[in-house]
Amino acid sequence: MWGGRGSAEDDVSEVGTMGEAGTVIEVGTEFVATPIQAGDEELARVAYNADGLVPAIVQRRGDGKVLMLAWMNETSLRRTLETGRTWFWSRSRQELWCKGETSGDRQWVREVSYDCDGDTLLVLVDQEGRGACHTGNVSCFYRSFGGQAGPATS
Amino acid sequence: MWGGRGSAEDDVSEVGTMGEAGTVIEVGTEFVATPIQAGDEELARVAYNADGLVPAIVQRRGDGKVLMLAWMNETSLRRTLETGRTWFWSRSRQELWCKGETSGDRQWVREVSYDCDGDTLLVLVDQEGRGACHTGNVSCFYRSFGGQAGPATS
Repeated sequence: MWGGRGSAEDDVSEVGTMGEAGTVIEVGTEFVATPIQAGDEELARVAYNADGLVPAIVQRRGDGKVLMLAWMNETSLRRTLETGRTWFWSRSRQELWCKGETSGDRQWVREVSYDCDGDTLLVLVDQEGRGACHTGNVSCFYRSFGGQAGPATS
Repeated sequence: MWGGRGSAEDDVSEVGTMGEAGTVIEVGTEFVATPIQAGDEELARVAYNADGLVPAIVQRRGDGKVLMLAWMNETSLRRTLETGRTWFWSRSRQELWCKGETSGDRQWVREVSYDCDGDTLLVLVDQEGRGACHTGNVSCFYRSFGGQAGPATS
């Protein structure tokens, strides 16, 4: 069920699937907001640290590329779920920020998971624009130890 | 280049690829240790927090499934690179631990990346055994907000 769409200019979508021998790879991207209804019981499972924060891994839907890690407080998590866009807490600036609000490199949330201990979040997104990293790279993880470039297979 | 192999019983490998229309999906797994040579300059790019720790995302090679997040200090990072197995710092027990050492659910490291700020690591592994989570789930992220099961596409 789709709802809470943004402005008309955000409503750009491209959907496709391809698979082989039982493997279905979702390659579609949807640059539309899809709010997630979360209950208070679920939200209470999140274990924030002493600073009221929890790390949020952002992963691209389709190819599973890990794009970045940023921090959320309870307000930014609720706003992420309600708006279908990624909201984080900036520890350096001490303020909420919405990814891509100024750069245009928006993240459209498709799913938010929490781990067994509730102390880490995993946010599945469709990434709009150049990518997630302020350096211009698609992923913030563009360098690997041993002098290699970033992950080739993820 | 492969080196530093474990015992003969660890030397179980299964490699394959399948693709379609330019998409290559690596599905092979290698349950052998592959040490990574990292220079001091690279290692100095890691920005540890006030507790001397950095979050490490562990991702499965091949399908890109995000398995878990745990914390590393400098010793555990160096040991991870040197041994080709994942070593973490337990904040609750205040000790180093090697994933799968007691459970058998070992992680064989293929690549370790660091992000633009150097304050998060991404570890690409071949996961042996049942999976990464102590609950018996393959991934620790087996629950999503909105009452859904974990990510279907990653």
